[in-house]
This record gives sequence, C-alpha cells and structure tokens, in this order.
Amino acid sequence: MNESLSQDLLDNIKIVLCQTSHPGNIGAAARAMKTMGLKHLVLLKPKHFPSEEAFTRSSGALDILDNALVVETLEQALSGCRLVIGTSSRNRALPWPLIEPREMAQICLDKKQSYPIAIMFGRESTGLLNEELQQCNYHVNIPANPEYMSLNLASAVQIIAYELRLAQLSSQGGDEAHQEHIVDKDSEQAATITEVDGLYNHLQLVMQQTEFYDPEQPKLLPARIRRLFAKAQLNQGEVNILRGFLSSIDKYIKRTTRQ
Amino acid sequence: MNESLSQDLLDNIKIVLCQTSHPGNIGAAARAMKTMGLKHLVLLKPKHFPSEEAFTRSSGALDILDNALVVETLEQALSGCRLVIGTSSRNRALPWPLIEPREMAQICLDKKQSYPIAIMFGRESTGLLNEELQQCNYHVNIPANPEYMSLNLASAVQIIAYELRLAQLSSQGGDEAHQEHIVDKDSEQAATITEVDGLYNHLQLVMQQTEFYDPEQPKLLPARIRRLFAKAQLNQGEVNILRGFLSSIDKYIKRTTRQ
Repeated sequence: MNESLSQDLLDNIKIVLCQTSHPGNIGAAARAMKTMGLKHLVLLKPKHFPSEEAFTRSSGALDILDNALVVETLEQALSGCRLVIGTSSRNRALPWPLIEPREMAQICLDKKQSYPIAIMFGRESTGLLNEELQQCNYHVNIPANPEYMSLNLASAVQIIAYELRLAQLSSQGGDEAHQEHIVDKDSEQAATITEVDGLYNHLQLVMQQTEFYDPEQPKLLPARIRRLFAKAQLNQGEVNILRGFLSSIDKYIKRTTRQ
Repeated sequence: MNESLSQDLLDNIKIVLCQTSHPGNIGAAARAMKTMGLKHLVLLKPKHFPSEEAFTRSSGALDILDNALVVETLEQALSGCRLVIGTSSRNRALPWPLIEPREMAQICLDKKQSYPIAIMFGRESTGLLNEELQQCNYHVNIPANPEYMSLNLASAVQIIAYELRLAQLSSQGGDEAHQEHIVDKDSEQAATITEVDGLYNHLQLVMQQTEFYDPEQPKLLPARIRRLFAKAQLNQGEVNILRGFLSSIDKYIKRTTRQ
C-alpha cells in the first residue's frame, strides 16, 4: 500500500452495493454513509444510476454519489482491496467465518495492514450471490428479529457505518463531538461534599420548622435525603438554587413570626 | 409493579415520534423497529396518519402501524412511562445528562424498575422542542459526522433499536444474579412522569409563595429544576417525601396567613 495513504479507518472503507434495484436506496445509502463519515461508494451494475431519485434521497450527500465508482464486474469492484466483508442474513450450506457488526468494526480497525477494506451489500431481494459471498474474508450478520429480517438496504449500511464510526472514535481516545457538549461553566461544576452537607443541614432545619421532620423520630428520612442527593450528583448551580429556595422559606417564616 | 408485566427490554420500550412531517418516515421507522424486535410506536401529532405512504414504506411492519397510538399531547405520549430519553444532536444552553446509544441501551436494560421507557425522536427539520427535551431523564446523541449530521429519522430509529436489541441479546446470556437486585418495594419503584410533573408543579407554586420564583421572569430556573429531577430519577418514595415537605410549607403558610 502507498505509504502516503491515510491510516484513518473510515477513509479506508469502500461500501460496495451489488446490483441495487431501486435508485432511492442508493441515495439513502449514500446519506447513511456520510452521516457516519464514510466516503467511498462502489456500485456494481446498478439498475438505474445516475438517477434523479438517488440524488433526491441522498439529501445532500451528493459528493458521495458524484464520486461513486460504477463498475461492471465483481473484480473491478474489489480492485485494490485487501480484505472483503460481505453482509449476509442467511445460513448458507457452506458456513463462512461469521461475525457481528461490532466485531467486524474492531477487526477493520485492527487490520491496518489490510486497508483498503471492501464491505459488500447484496440485492434488495436476494442478497449476495454465492460467488460474491465466496470472495469474502468474513460474512457479517446483523442480528435482526428472526421473525422479520426485512432490513432496508440503507438501514443495513447505516448500522455497519455506525459501528465503523464508533470503532474509529474509540481509537481516537474519545469522542470529540461528545466532548463539545461538556460545558465548562462554574455552575456546572460538581458540588463539593461540604456544599452538599451544607444543603442537607439547611434542609433539615427548614423541615423541622415546618414540622415535617421530627429529629426525635427520624426514621429513614435522613438516609433517603442523603441518597437522593447522591443520586442527583448535584452541581454548584443546583446547590445554589436549593439553598436559595430554603432561604426564601426562612425569610417567609421570619416575616410571619415577627408579626 | 404488576407481576404480570414482561421484564423483556424490547417489550418495554415505546418509540415516540414527535410531529413527524413525512408519513414515509413513519413507515420506515416502523420497519426499522420491527427488524430489531420493537413493538410499541406512539405518534405525537403526526402531520399525516394513517397514510398510504406510511403503509407502503413500512414494508410489512403493518402490525406496528396498526397498533400505533396517535396522541395530541406530550403528556399523553409519555403517560405511564418511568424513564424518558430524548434523541438530540444539538448543543444546548443547559446541558443535560448526555449519553451515547450503547450506554443508553445498557441503562435501559439495567433499569427494570423504570419500565416502561419512552424514547423520543423529534421533527425531521428541528428535532425535539425544549419543552420535550426537558421532560427527559437523558439525552442520547448518535455520534454522527460533525460535518454532516443529517441522519434520516428512520435511520436514527434503526441505530437506537439495534443497540437495544444487542443489549437484550447480551442479557439473554443469562444474568439471573442481576435479577435479584430488583427491589420490589413500591416506594423504590421509579416515579411516573405524571408523578414527577405533579411534584414539579407543586414546587413551583410554593416557590412563588415564598417569593423565590417569579413566573414573569423565569430565566433558567424551570429548566434547571426539570433537569435536576431528571438526573435524580426520583422513585415514588422520594416524590412522596418531597410532596410531604412542600405540603408542610403550604400548611405553615396557611396557618400564618390566617392569623
């Protein structure tokens, strides 16, 4: 393999759709690929392509369709690939190394020496032909409902692409998109044990004043409140809100007892 | 909890589609659900339903559509549910407990005391509304390509359903020891959404009376309280304690205003 090629998993996957009947499925598959960061689409003898319907259903993943390679033979479709995986839902007379999508993604991540990798998807009605399945290093099976295995082509591409993306993200030591959600505001900082204790004590006092809590007969109340705070994993903003609310009750009580 | 209820994860998931515009997406979502063994579909104010296109795109998952519950309000959609998860792709001003689909599936598998569970999907264009997102215990984010997040509604349902199915299959490897941890006291049972709403409304009223909260200037307070309740995943005993405490404040206020 050319040393300058990317070692990025998603860059090294070719999605090969074999003899797809409905161009809408090609578009939807392109969309599914792009949402997960896959780029390379190969179409083996598609019934209709290019097609208006494919472009419509791709919903903006036009670059995937524009760059799709349309080929006439299986050999051309797999040209240059070092590992071939075929999706298969059926038990075959000749059992093949059979893996699930998650295991597949890990294998694809690990076998960098086998890049690029082809993942083949069969016809809407009949799946992959035996000659295609026999070109594969592995068969991958999406564990669908045995009573209703009718997974749409683009849905199958979506699940496989999703697992590949997760494998890629896991190898990057953390999901960057996910990191963006973490907000670094002070109020979102977890409360300290001391702050939670302060809240707990304040709550107990107010509960006594409103005669909800009798420290002579505590029963399970203190433990339940403690557990509730523990479960909630309060942040500083939340402690401040609850202390503020308790203070508003304090003030109300002071106003009324002065009268 | 009723002993006759199934403890099967997939039986206890409700997929809630909020104001879906395109009936084809409803059909495709039903198909995605059925391939993974999910059964319960709730449609909150769908634009067109029942619809010929939905039935066509469901590709045989007609039972899911026939049994779909069509409702007018969010409250009806979540009725009876004890845990609510919302799909969300956006950064929000107020960050919510955010999980990925795999973690979500494990949580759903583990929290049997929180069955049934609602998983909400938003509008094709704008996702879930803030008021919907604030009803959620968790937000689940499918880690899509940050440069192209345009995941089709049915594809999102497919990925979530796939993870739920994998979790269910993994648990059938026989985790009986785990079952013993299920606590069978009523007070430990997760509170329903309606019970938590009741607590929330009561708290708001008391906060107004003690002049802590001004509904004319709510700022982020309502959202923060909602999120705190969501994080805490209150059980019925805790709701009862907090309602009891609020009632004790009510009574105190009544006593003093009568004087």
